[in-house]
Amino acid sequence: MEEKLIPDIVVGRLPLYLRALQHMTNEGRQVTSSQELGERLGISAAQIRKDLSQFGEFGKQGTGYHIDFLQDQIRKILKVDRVWSVAVVGAGDIGSAVAAYQGFANRGFQVTMLFDNSPAKIGKKIGNFTVLDIATLEETIRKEGIQVAMITVPADQAQAVADLLVKAGVKAILNYAPLSLNVPSEVRVQNTDPATHLQRMTYYLD
Amino acid sequence: MEEKLIPDIVVGRLPLYLRALQHMTNEGRQVTSSQELGERLGISAAQIRKDLSQFGEFGKQGTGYHIDFLQDQIRKILKVDRVWSVAVVGAGDIGSAVAAYQGFANRGFQVTMLFDNSPAKIGKKIGNFTVLDIATLEETIRKEGIQVAMITVPADQAQAVADLLVKAGVKAILNYAPLSLNVPSEVRVQNTDPATHLQRMTYYLD
Repeated sequence: MEEKLIPDIVVGRLPLYLRALQHMTNEGRQVTSSQELGERLGISAAQIRKDLSQFGEFGKQGTGYHIDFLQDQIRKILKVDRVWSVAVVGAGDIGSAVAAYQGFANRGFQVTMLFDNSPAKIGKKIGNFTVLDIATLEETIRKEGIQVAMITVPADQAQAVADLLVKAGVKAILNYAPLSLNVPSEVRVQNTDPATHLQRMTYYLD
Repeated sequence: MEEKLIPDIVVGRLPLYLRALQHMTNEGRQVTSSQELGERLGISAAQIRKDLSQFGEFGKQGTGYHIDFLQDQIRKILKVDRVWSVAVVGAGDIGSAVAAYQGFANRGFQVTMLFDNSPAKIGKKIGNFTVLDIATLEETIRKEGIQVAMITVPADQAQAVADLLVKAGVKAILNYAPLSLNVPSEVRVQNTDPATHLQRMTYYLD
């Protein structure tokens, strides 16, 4: 698949293209253009054409892109033409919300387990999940072959959880804890921390 | 403040530097180096020096950075040397979790109001908040002079909420809904959508 090295910034835009295409499908649309996609996303049409051309020929000059076809292609490129099982570690407010999140449907992910270390939570039902003991995490994740996880524990526990996930074979971590994790280079981490996102914007305020 | 135009990608790294410096303070540390910061963040020391040099002289060759001083400077640059009131729109699982989030303390933000449009929620207590009627949003936000908001409503309502926030004078929106918002150019939007984050990583999985 990865015959040439694609910049990660380009890979990072593909999910946005896919999301916009899925909205168009929901609107009953069948064909779009790089201009229209660009307007929806605030990205130039030229950038979109250049990004997509790194992966193949998906549209024709003058006729644009067939939405279903382009979606299928991007799903294959991003490997979300399948459903990845996701483990959530930390059954607090954020973890419970993200485990129950409806927005993963049709986007390649299903949360299948929710872990915590609190005796008050282990064994209890939260939404559709029975909270699992973090002491069983490594064995359970390894047995199920889970490669994707979300960390929703407090900052002071997040690195220890990351170490445990890496030991269990997880290769992709979405980190909600407000600190940067140290992981081996073969493990990917994406961070989402509302304060960090907000601070990037207040710079521009008066 | 903005004498020269700083690339947004540089602005986007400052909150990460600030977060790492705050952790060092919590660890009782007083001095650090671009090397150490770089190792914590997975960013090269040269990049960190270059980024910081865009804003001034914050350290000395050989002695490194005084952590408290550098934190104060970055707080001023990012304008989080004050506390911004934040409105959360959408009192579902994610909105309730983010409104209750402890991680904003000492980082420049305080959620002060939580809105919803559901008669079942309006007037009810969720955590420390009494849910406000979205019909009062424009007037309330304008009166309080709130410039920062988070959108945690379903995708099909998010654009309408964004329009309302913009009308009320909001200038910075953290969008949890899984779609790209159209806003005037003077309004900043940051997006956080767990499926998009995860899709960016599955590309690299086998």
